[in-house]
Amino acid sequence: MAYHLVQRDRAGAERLAGTLSEALKRLRHCERCNTLTEQSQCELCSSPRRDASLLCVVETPADLLMMEQTQVYGGLYFILLGRLSPLDGVGPKEIQLDKLVERAADGVVKEVILATNFTVEGEATAHYVGELLRSRGLKVTRIARGMPMGGELEHVDTGTLAQAVFERREI
Amino acid sequence: MAYHLVQRDRAGAERLAGTLSEALKRLRHCERCNTLTEQSQCELCSSPRRDASLLCVVETPADLLMMEQTQVYGGLYFILLGRLSPLDGVGPKEIQLDKLVERAADGVVKEVILATNFTVEGEATAHYVGELLRSRGLKVTRIARGMPMGGELEHVDTGTLAQAVFERREI
Repeated sequence: MAYHLVQRDRAGAERLAGTLSEALKRLRHCERCNTLTEQSQCELCSSPRRDASLLCVVETPADLLMMEQTQVYGGLYFILLGRLSPLDGVGPKEIQLDKLVERAADGVVKEVILATNFTVEGEATAHYVGELLRSRGLKVTRIARGMPMGGELEHVDTGTLAQAVFERREI
Repeated sequence: MAYHLVQRDRAGAERLAGTLSEALKRLRHCERCNTLTEQSQCELCSSPRRDASLLCVVETPADLLMMEQTQVYGGLYFILLGRLSPLDGVGPKEIQLDKLVERAADGVVKEVILATNFTVEGEATAHYVGELLRSRGLKVTRIARGMPMGGELEHVDTGTLAQAVFERREI
């Protein structure tokens, strides 16, 4: 992309540079949920149509976008801007858990949904955050693990299938 | 493979033909669970070390193999040898649901785990079989749907993520 811009589209490169630098100037983190926004509070946090009793915890602003694309979630968000990863020097302070605890204890939030990734770091983060919030008397849930949509037994890994058996549900 | 055998490995082809025809003669369906076996009852069905109070319903013998590879399931199986698919003329009779109902009602089975695929036909089959067995007073469970192991929000389809949110669990 860099070669194309410099060799064949110098005007485009100029525009891109301007737009990026503009974005850097204007975009900041929402003071409530940490996502990227041009206001002090993002549109979701200031929307009266969202259900303020639900708080979904995700790792990145891109994860928030994915959740919104499912169109099944009507609550608010908190973005950790990372995940616990002691080997990389990322501890509870670096992902602003104090801010999350304060946010979740606003008296309006009834349920905190942990939607960190199902990677080792994401799972560790969910466990740590879950314990922390439960000790404050909050209801904490974790998005489900199991077989993906369209999944066939022959084509999923054994770990996923084992998890799906462990977490089976009565119907 | 056919070209290779006929052009370069005629002895191998002979052996393969013999083995296949031998397998066809010897292999039959287990009279209890329908899997492929050389005896009238397969090794799993006649093993005293399996938990006879658990019955797992799968679509094919290959699915049974996948379940065994997870090493987390110690019960017995019932193989439908197919799935409900009305457009292809496969109804309840073709997948031997009568035999399943009889098998599940042996008085020893306490829980039937439905482990059909998460495809449209697999889900319809699970729904139909579930209703059928529940109406006989049996406990019926379905393996879990959700995010696969190692799954990241950014890389799963929105359908799977939506399902994971719907089926979230309190921790």
